[in-house]
Amino acid sequence: MLKIAFIGLGKMGFPMAGRLCDAGHDVGVYNRTASKAEPLVTRGATVLESVSDAARYGDVVLTMLENDAALSAVALRDDGLVAGMNRGGIHVAMGTHSIKLIEALVKAHDNAGLRFVSAPVLGRPPAAEAGQLGIIAGGAPDVVDTCQPLFEAMGRRTYAGGSEPVGAAVAKIVNNFILACSIEAMGEGFALGRKCGLPAESLYQILTDGLFGAPAYKIYGKIIADEDYFNQPGFSATTGLKDVLLALAAGEGAAVPLPSANICRDRLLSAIASGHADADWSVMAHEQARVSGL
Amino acid sequence: MLKIAFIGLGKMGFPMAGRLCDAGHDVGVYNRTASKAEPLVTRGATVLESVSDAARYGDVVLTMLENDAALSAVALRDDGLVAGMNRGGIHVAMGTHSIKLIEALVKAHDNAGLRFVSAPVLGRPPAAEAGQLGIIAGGAPDVVDTCQPLFEAMGRRTYAGGSEPVGAAVAKIVNNFILACSIEAMGEGFALGRKCGLPAESLYQILTDGLFGAPAYKIYGKIIADEDYFNQPGFSATTGLKDVLLALAAGEGAAVPLPSANICRDRLLSAIASGHADADWSVMAHEQARVSGL
Amino acid sequence: MLKIAFIGLGKMGFPMAGRLCDAGHDVGVYNRTASKAEPLVTRGATVLESVSDAARYGDVVLTMLENDAALSAVALRDDGLVAGMNRGGIHVAMGTHSIKLIEALVKAHDNAGLRFVSAPVLGRPPAAEAGQLGIIAGGAPDVVDTCQPLFEAMGRRTYAGGSEPVGAAVAKIVNNFILACSIEAMGEGFALGRKCGLPAESLYQILTDGLFGAPAYKIYGKIIADEDYFNQPGFSATTGLKDVLLALAAGEGAAVPLPSANICRDRLLSAIASGHADADWSVMAHEQARVSGL
Amino acid sequence: MLKIAFIGLGKMGFPMAGRLCDAGHDVGVYNRTASKAEPLVTRGATVLESVSDAARYGDVVLTMLENDAALSAVALRDDGLVAGMNRGGIHVAMGTHSIKLIEALVKAHDNAGLRFVSAPVLGRPPAAEAGQLGIIAGGAPDVVDTCQPLFEAMGRRTYAGGSEPVGAAVAKIVNNFILACSIEAMGEGFALGRKCGLPAESLYQILTDGLFGAPAYKIYGKIIADEDYFNQPGFSATTGLKDVLLALAAGEGAAVPLPSANICRDRLLSAIASGHADADWSVMAHEQARVSGL
Repeated sequence: MLKIAFIGLGKMGFPMAGRLCDAGHDVGVYNRTASKAEPLVTRGATVLESVSDAARYGDVVLTMLENDAALSAVALRDDGLVAGMNRGGIHVAMGTHSIKLIEALVKAHDNAGLRFVSAPVLGRPPAAEAGQLGIIAGGAPDVVDTCQPLFEAMGRRTYAGGSEPVGAAVAKIVNNFILACSIEAMGEGFALGRKCGLPAESLYQILTDGLFGAPAYKIYGKIIADEDYFNQPGFSATTGLKDVLLALAAGEGAAVPLPSANICRDRLLSAIASGHADADWSVMAHEQARVSGL
Repeated sequence: MLKIAFIGLGKMGFPMAGRLCDAGHDVGVYNRTASKAEPLVTRGATVLESVSDAARYGDVVLTMLENDAALSAVALRDDGLVAGMNRGGIHVAMGTHSIKLIEALVKAHDNAGLRFVSAPVLGRPPAAEAGQLGIIAGGAPDVVDTCQPLFEAMGRRTYAGGSEPVGAAVAKIVNNFILACSIEAMGEGFALGRKCGLPAESLYQILTDGLFGAPAYKIYGKIIADEDYFNQPGFSATTGLKDVLLALAAGEGAAVPLPSANICRDRLLSAIASGHADADWSVMAHEQARVSGL
Repeated sequence: MLKIAFIGLGKMGFPMAGRLCDAGHDVGVYNRTASKAEPLVTRGATVLESVSDAARYGDVVLTMLENDAALSAVALRDDGLVAGMNRGGIHVAMGTHSIKLIEALVKAHDNAGLRFVSAPVLGRPPAAEAGQLGIIAGGAPDVVDTCQPLFEAMGRRTYAGGSEPVGAAVAKIVNNFILACSIEAMGEGFALGRKCGLPAESLYQILTDGLFGAPAYKIYGKIIADEDYFNQPGFSATTGLKDVLLALAAGEGAAVPLPSANICRDRLLSAIASGHADADWSVMAHEQARVSGL
Repeated sequence: MLKIAFIGLGKMGFPMAGRLCDAGHDVGVYNRTASKAEPLVTRGATVLESVSDAARYGDVVLTMLENDAALSAVALRDDGLVAGMNRGGIHVAMGTHSIKLIEALVKAHDNAGLRFVSAPVLGRPPAAEAGQLGIIAGGAPDVVDTCQPLFEAMGRRTYAGGSEPVGAAVAKIVNNFILACSIEAMGEGFALGRKCGLPAESLYQILTDGLFGAPAYKIYGKIIADEDYFNQPGFSATTGLKDVLLALAAGEGAAVPLPSANICRDRLLSAIASGHADADWSVMAHEQARVSGL
């Protein structure tokens, strides 16, 4: 049976690793703050002491890290995965990362005789706990097949992200970018409606009852209709900007102009300039209202 | 019982008038091309000979006209509704019209001692036939209440568009504008995905299976994933541009900047410049692909 | 010798008509507010009582009217120029007008056996007084040639606007649109500079001393560097918006996307929404500063 | 007298260093490709063997490097300037660099007890040879004063870039960004003119004879009017994109939305996607023409 190492036990990584344990896999876990690994021991996990240990432990190493800097350090440093994994080993990066880093990792793993898969996930911590994530897997088909039992332990569905890891990586980026565009469009639409005397609640009903009856519009339309940007930020303006910049950087690399992403970028910068860096990223709509004289 | 006159028996107006007949209302119908009115006679309608006749016939006159020019002519000409209706009569404009015209109609009806409601509809001909339209009613609450039985004959739900007709008018405009933004965002996202090796079908599944599981994305995402812009245009680039321009004009009147609408406008102009005026308006995605070098 | 009728004696038209008088032409003048015509009598002008009189008086009728509504009324009403001018007569429209109106005028004059030239001017009242306007003449070459002595009395240079009146009309629109873009670009650049500690006066020197040593940058860069938007508006935000909308409408007619014009439009709308409709249109930079948190 | 080390003898650096020699300064020169330094020996320069040597040689070290990577290596590597210069030494970075790198350099020099000035230049190689550069100097006033004799040997004028190096750095970035905007605005304006029958040469004359009589418009307007993008690229689309991205990155760091820069970015990406990466960056206008159906 495959031995698995799991690196990164944050809000998403912890429940994902837990699902793998519960499914009976042999799982070694590593987290920079070691204490976070302890609760997994009772579920069968082996606590590992270092990235090097993880590299040696797993036939498959899964990483669920928060940003490029963390993944780059774990994978590419002298004592990192690429240097330490056994030839033929598989590294599956499950975080949301830039195309540039994914391309660099593809090359580095290839040079080292390792296999690399990008498998970003859709869903939030409760979905991770319930094993209900969407998983977008990109990489060589045989390697993705090998990982499929692991994906099944963590997710409700695996999407074919293509035979190159960048395909899967960009899918997650595009998903988040389109969400930003939805919020921006609602911000503009609600501002126009309000200035013309249309009750925000009516507009919300009209949209979500019809063409836009989906979580993106239900969740963010509600926040915008209620102008409730500051109480319980789920995803901050700063984090939203990071995601939009990932889309723009991907566009720069692939020579794809993204005018809608530009608008989201500018709106988020303006929100941040107004002191709303920590508000929910739908504060974009608040900025739109402001430049509309509301 | 209220006597109703219905003007405009096009693809939407015909089934709407038919529903009113079937519900037992006293309905007079007028259409510029008179032959279209005939089939309604067997359902109980009285055929009217002119706009003037319609003005005199109805306690409530409903208009379902294709554009501003048609409604303006019917309502404001010397032999039009405003000149011909009896004091206290109600005119309900159910087409999609500019805020500027709605404002002019409010004033004209007011000056003539008439009541005016804007009640644009959501849905396509099959929904009109089934009495399943969404109806956004804006105007004085007592007048809207008077019309509610008529709306119930035609629609599944009436949305409160506010106490001013412009509020309801803008709701329809905003709905269509946000749809344009969804198409544009998908166009950009699919182009980026394709250039990074992501299968279009996978991206479609990812989007519609998750945050974007709604008709806007299912219908137009499918067309974009299949690059099927030219076979069965539902809504042409020219018509789409008209709708986006309605949003921009509303924004100009209300001093609301609409950067996302600008992008849709430019994209549609570019599609038209490329010779795709009659393609489905999601040809926006085709233009995006072209400037991405695809 | 040609008899000339001049309609529209505003801030520009008055000195232009005066130059024609001084050059010895036979000039009849008409203005809606008749008193404005009086001072030209001593310079040799004949005061005309109506547009009809002007239509009959001139072999060439020059109009210098403030907007489309005024020109449309003067030219196209039942007692207007097209109805009243003698066959073969020449109408030269020297104001800044929409492409749509110019196209309609071309058709109307053509149908009536009249000749039509669009000849918008560059320069402000002092240049008009000094006969130093730039004149962009578009129309049939023989007709433009006939008018050249008149242009020489009013201007320093005549530019070839092409053999169709729309060409000249669009030249003026493009000139003003590019000016708007310059102001917007400076607004963005000065905001970025200020947030990074660059003295505005230095940036002004750098720009105007080098690549941008031209009136557009010297005049508006100074206002922006001094943040002096409110004291002596030369050209208001409302007027600026009107010009940008002329460019956008021209783009819509010709299927030309104009993303930079969109930005100027949105910026001006935002300035107007903030209550700055009457400020100098470079208040665009003030809005940019505001969304930058300055 | 101050001893000077000059690092980076490219198309700009070589003539700049030569001017310093000719002015009688004690100049040590270093270039990665050593042969480029030879011709300066006859003008009095001392050839240095390494960055370390340069660090030790100069009371003032001037760097004129092509990009961030080169400057970062020269300044921050273990054997670089920051590690090697004598306490109190001055490093003047004269290339065009990102705000992020300049900020990092400020901190690094400060920690090492060194003084740092950013002094980017305006002008091309012939201006450098003639000592006619514009120099934007940003840093502590006493340090800038110390460097002023050097600036006088190389430039026609020193602009006060503020007391922080980032101010001067951003000035150069803003200058280039506004140039990009000028090109974009012309691209849009010429496309609109051409579709309306306006001769491109006329538009060029109108613009450069009036409000836009400055090098930015004369140089690039000519290329656009002549559609001469491919023969003698002065500054490629790739290089132009690099400059626009510097502006956008500065905006991200300072929370300044830059919608005009976004448009330039997208236009350049589209040109690159079309295979025009090596064309003159005014190929932006070619892309605009293409999406206008020309």
